[in-house]
Amino acid sequence: MNEQRSAPVPGGKAFRPKPRLPRGFKDRDEAELMAEARMLDTIRGVYASYGFQALETSAFEYADALGKFLPDSDRPNEGVFSLKDDDGQWLSLRYDLTAPLARHVAENFQNLPKPFRRYQVGTVWRNEKPGPGRFREFIQCDADTVGSAAPAADAELLMMCADCLESLGLKRGDYGILLNSRKLLDGVLEAAGVAADPVRRGIVLRALDKLERLGVDGVRALLGEGRRDESGDFTSGAGLNPEAISRVLGFAVPDQESAGDPESVLPRLARSVAGSTAGEAGAANLGEILRIVNTCGYGADRIRVDSGIVRGLDYYTGAVFEAQLTFPVTNDADEKVVFGSIGGGGRYDGLVARFTGAEVPATGISIGVSRLLSALKARAGAQAFAAAPLCVVLVLDKGAAAEAFRTAAELRAAGIRAEAYAGDGGMKAQLKYADKRCAAIAVIEGGDERARGEITLKDLNRGAELAKTAETRDAWLTARPAQQTVRRGELVACVRAMLDGGRTS
Amino acid sequence: MNEQRSAPVPGGKAFRPKPRLPRGFKDRDEAELMAEARMLDTIRGVYASYGFQALETSAFEYADALGKFLPDSDRPNEGVFSLKDDDGQWLSLRYDLTAPLARHVAENFQNLPKPFRRYQVGTVWRNEKPGPGRFREFIQCDADTVGSAAPAADAELLMMCADCLESLGLKRGDYGILLNSRKLLDGVLEAAGVAADPVRRGIVLRALDKLERLGVDGVRALLGEGRRDESGDFTSGAGLNPEAISRVLGFAVPDQESAGDPESVLPRLARSVAGSTAGEAGAANLGEILRIVNTCGYGADRIRVDSGIVRGLDYYTGAVFEAQLTFPVTNDADEKVVFGSIGGGGRYDGLVARFTGAEVPATGISIGVSRLLSALKARAGAQAFAAAPLCVVLVLDKGAAAEAFRTAAELRAAGIRAEAYAGDGGMKAQLKYADKRCAAIAVIEGGDERARGEITLKDLNRGAELAKTAETRDAWLTARPAQQTVRRGELVACVRAMLDGGRTS
Repeated sequence: MNEQRSAPVPGGKAFRPKPRLPRGFKDRDEAELMAEARMLDTIRGVYASYGFQALETSAFEYADALGKFLPDSDRPNEGVFSLKDDDGQWLSLRYDLTAPLARHVAENFQNLPKPFRRYQVGTVWRNEKPGPGRFREFIQCDADTVGSAAPAADAELLMMCADCLESLGLKRGDYGILLNSRKLLDGVLEAAGVAADPVRRGIVLRALDKLERLGVDGVRALLGEGRRDESGDFTSGAGLNPEAISRVLGFAVPDQESAGDPESVLPRLARSVAGSTAGEAGAANLGEILRIVNTCGYGADRIRVDSGIVRGLDYYTGAVFEAQLTFPVTNDADEKVVFGSIGGGGRYDGLVARFTGAEVPATGISIGVSRLLSALKARAGAQAFAAAPLCVVLVLDKGAAAEAFRTAAELRAAGIRAEAYAGDGGMKAQLKYADKRCAAIAVIEGGDERARGEITLKDLNRGAELAKTAETRDAWLTARPAQQTVRRGELVACVRAMLDGGRTS
Repeated sequence: MNEQRSAPVPGGKAFRPKPRLPRGFKDRDEAELMAEARMLDTIRGVYASYGFQALETSAFEYADALGKFLPDSDRPNEGVFSLKDDDGQWLSLRYDLTAPLARHVAENFQNLPKPFRRYQVGTVWRNEKPGPGRFREFIQCDADTVGSAAPAADAELLMMCADCLESLGLKRGDYGILLNSRKLLDGVLEAAGVAADPVRRGIVLRALDKLERLGVDGVRALLGEGRRDESGDFTSGAGLNPEAISRVLGFAVPDQESAGDPESVLPRLARSVAGSTAGEAGAANLGEILRIVNTCGYGADRIRVDSGIVRGLDYYTGAVFEAQLTFPVTNDADEKVVFGSIGGGGRYDGLVARFTGAEVPATGISIGVSRLLSALKARAGAQAFAAAPLCVVLVLDKGAAAEAFRTAAELRAAGIRAEAYAGDGGMKAQLKYADKRCAAIAVIEGGDERARGEITLKDLNRGAELAKTAETRDAWLTARPAQQTVRRGELVACVRAMLDGGRTS
């Protein structure tokens, strides 16, 4: 790869690589980073207030320690960035924060507090086909409790998630933390006589997943003999008997009595699994979780059971939960839709057992950082995430650069974000620079003004507004609207007044 | 790599990977992460107040776009983690933040403000042989100005660096931002008649680097014919004539008149390069930088010229600078030493030209995050970086878990970091847990106490102190020192008083 060097090749031209981002990656700018940092600081603050500990694991793991738990992939190492270390061992970049947590816990088991409650915010990498809005590098934000089977550990995650969303400015009613149990689903299937038959069970779960699209009658057909669609194609059903079908539908379809009454959902679901050991244990577990969150003041307006939550079925072993935003947003097709899920999680057991053989109960929640950020922007408006307004002090003659930098330092000392122009360009280049920086005010201090003890402030926000009505950019520049000359000693006060939107003429 | 799965191998045992960190990587715990986050937030705040923009580039770059600028390596791709993408192109993880900046600038040149001033805090990876304290993954914190040759751009970085260190609590006199110029060094060599001879020039530079170890006479010998050391080995010298030697030593060795008088250093250095075009330009450039920082109130107690600064000579083209901490710390050998460099940078030109062919002037500074953090810990003491004290509410009977969680929520609502025990263990396990979590207070609410409207607080800090004098841990646990029972309604007030170190009996 010597051609990477910029040294001239004898008899030829220097090799010049094309400057381009790798496929599926992106650079992120100030606006996105500032908004994300504020959001993550808030979430970290809530996690820390609950006594969860920060942890940061290495980006690389040994491939065998990382394992393969990616969904939707039968091929080992598919979906992961891997390379061989110089000692011949394979290293992989983490694809989530849960597998490294399992390695960390197994490696440090003796020294960790038990239960071990940690949060981690970090980049993960997926070696997948990139697409629009689908990146190969993104940030996850997880909280997990390892080493506790107590329902309190799940309850705590649900309350913590609700606290995060409200700390971020979402209102009661804007969101719901929805709760279900893998054991409850198992109980329904057991009661329906299909628990031991993975093929039939798969058909039932896929059918339930189509409830919204096909309606109750369509799902009923799929649970029984099968269903012929509009095109004439026939889909084989699960072959359940009428009583089993009725049980399954009774689980998944809210009945009249529970509609609008979230308190009645769990009793209804418990009835539909009566007689199944797994199901009854699941119902009792959800009941205990609800009792804890209710005691702590989290009612059904925030945390409630919803039998429609069917997350990552191959992975979870007990409670599963999902945080949904219930307010409408406008999608790309200009339709009003409910924002939907911004994260979730549940109980899992097998991860640490991969290393030690002993199952360690664990439960965790993961927040989708980029999805939550777009939701907050949609709800709060871009204004809420805007950077502090910026002043640019122009440098009219090179000899006075030092004075311009001193003026910028004076504004900063007063708590105002300010910079002096650090380039080599003239007046036009400097105004263009201020424009690209989205500066609020240009501060101009020419030699004559300095001699008179004066300084000029140009309101660029107002200038930009006026420019919309001006015929040309040049006309705007020469008209110099929203500009005022003030006493040098009143600089800070006048800048403050201009930033507050007042005029100080 | 099917053996990564934990599925049992027919006729054999399940494969169990060993949980272990890859060589040269580490997990980072709460104490380190909290201290680092506070430090980086402060630095980011200073950068943003100067109007520098945040940028985050992708972790991966195309290998040809990243290029190879690592020091101490003649082999292409040595030192970098690289892998082949599924379309056959080589990807590399960034090894610093400067090469990705060059790619970003070249790719987005038309749309960026000019000059483009950005900061980036991010992980970088080096595929090097790990060693004690030498990791293959670490964080860098850079600020660069691209597209300005003005001395103001360098001056600004120096002032910003000083502001960062003072915002972090370092006092005037605890640090110095030391400034030199590559052009000044070139001028000295030119004046000594060795600029065009890379071999001789290398000998001169290596000799200057040994000034502290060999003293003036040893270096004088190396600049002349050569030097025989104590073992009898002879090192050939640069073969300079006496006048050239005198010039070079005059540059590097502070003379009597400038000792203790930093203002006189630049005039002295300027004299030593008189007649050299490069040298005179370098001296004028440093003079202009000093004029700007002095006008802004940064005197020689913070920013000063030091001819001993010889950073990354193959990379920089103009001003070079280094931030040094001047207070003493105790090293591993229990000796008092000056802490030394925590970062630096300088002017460079070639990076963007690799892509476009056109040289774009740039200057930048990089702070060594982990070194600065240990310096701050050494200076401020670990206390300054401690997490907020933590209360653990114990769960005495499983049926009362909900109440314990409500108590923790009540403490959090009052701004106190608090958690309820989320595990399955008994009293002993819970106290052990609180101990491992370094909790300040255990809150104990038994059934009897609840009936009486009371609650018990155990001061674990004080308990730990008393335990030092107790004979056994069990004796400490049973003696239950520093424990008090208070009215339930006074919980928050009593916890506050205990955290403040007062007794509320």
